[in-house]
Amino acid sequence: MTAKRTLILLRHGQSEWNELNLFTGWVDVRLTEKGKAEANRGGELLAESGILPDVLHTSLLSRAIQTANIALDSADRLWIPVKRTWRLNERHYGALQGKDKAETLAEYGPEQFQLWRRSFDVPPPPIAADSEFSQVDDPRYVGIDGEVPLTESLKLVIDRLLPYWEDEIVPDLEAGKTVLVTAHGNSLRGLVKHLEGISDDDIAELNIPTGIPLVYELDENNVPLGPGRYLDPEAAAAGAAAVAAQGKK
Amino acid sequence: MTAKRTLILLRHGQSEWNELNLFTGWVDVRLTEKGKAEANRGGELLAESGILPDVLHTSLLSRAIQTANIALDSADRLWIPVKRTWRLNERHYGALQGKDKAETLAEYGPEQFQLWRRSFDVPPPPIAADSEFSQVDDPRYVGIDGEVPLTESLKLVIDRLLPYWEDEIVPDLEAGKTVLVTAHGNSLRGLVKHLEGISDDDIAELNIPTGIPLVYELDENNVPLGPGRYLDPEAAAAGAAAVAAQGKK
Repeated sequence: MTAKRTLILLRHGQSEWNELNLFTGWVDVRLTEKGKAEANRGGELLAESGILPDVLHTSLLSRAIQTANIALDSADRLWIPVKRTWRLNERHYGALQGKDKAETLAEYGPEQFQLWRRSFDVPPPPIAADSEFSQVDDPRYVGIDGEVPLTESLKLVIDRLLPYWEDEIVPDLEAGKTVLVTAHGNSLRGLVKHLEGISDDDIAELNIPTGIPLVYELDENNVPLGPGRYLDPEAAAAGAAAVAAQGKK
Repeated sequence: MTAKRTLILLRHGQSEWNELNLFTGWVDVRLTEKGKAEANRGGELLAESGILPDVLHTSLLSRAIQTANIALDSADRLWIPVKRTWRLNERHYGALQGKDKAETLAEYGPEQFQLWRRSFDVPPPPIAADSEFSQVDDPRYVGIDGEVPLTESLKLVIDRLLPYWEDEIVPDLEAGKTVLVTAHGNSLRGLVKHLEGISDDDIAELNIPTGIPLVYELDENNVPLGPGRYLDPEAAAAGAAAVAAQGKK
């Protein structure tokens, strides 16, 4: 008998820039009070379901780390080991970082807007290195095992995410640990695409709601035994619809 | 030239049981609102001083982890790597865990009370393994590299603390990292005793206040270049006096 492999994905709750409807990417904004409440509810859902993480992997962005800290507090699992990595960061949104989503939609039109948001391999224009919204001088990325990006497509996110999945997360799963990953809309879309074998075209339609744990049971090849299961399916459906409607206000 | 070695010690802020004046030890109580405010202030002191941690070591107790999470949030360093260990836990208070300090003082008298609180090598009576305040069945200690204690003296705390200091903290210091340790009154007293070479008798008089970063610069043998420096000396003196007066209400 092999050990059960349980993976929990948790997208951070509402951030200050989600609320302002700005493209965020690698800009390090914090959770709003609503976002903190979402994270707290996420931890309660874990506790109620009895699906308790043994180890945490997070991005280097404060909103994902805050989400993990709050959720683990409400699930009474603050003490589990944690690893942080830039490879779980949100997609770098290039020159769009800091721009209003509705204004961008109005300025460039729906076709270009959707291309930047949902195309698989077309990155936005690169950010200027001296932009106030660039991260090339951010101390958290000094010494990382890669280059600080100036823009990314979803494909590029997956390219930098999968080595971490294989090298750091899979070994924890293979050790029988229940693994919690707290990350971002696009890094989690990339991971779900890989897990579920979703095509480059179909991934455009996948939206992951904030703050609701998404649970996978995996086989010995780390392939899901069934579709991912949200611990609050009704709230998840409403949340995914809200993500799909972004920029359309 | 060798890299500068900076060590920051931070005792957790007021906990629910500090407020109730109960012996806590390994019982996993949370911070009060006052304790959270202390942790926030601790992080502000780090940010104001420019002494920013590169890596965090904490105990497995929620009050130390909460303190670190809050302080790193206010210092904008949520993203630093973290290691957690039972070896930084508070002293196990044995059968005193869960007992009122003032009642214990009245019942056993000042001599026995001070012996349990401040003697170097006399542990309190062991806790019953089936006590509601025992940790022998706590999931966080499954698989740790040691036995869950039933009681500890300060000497026993130092015995289990020093291997972690040598194996995990010193290498970070030697790599030139500024190290933050968030822990507890007695695990930090043990560490300060080791660092400053305080005698078994004199350590009884050392009280570490809550929530105020204590900074050491260390030489290439990890010996302090001078006495530890509190980032808010006035508040630290008042805090240490308050700790010394505990149980005397």
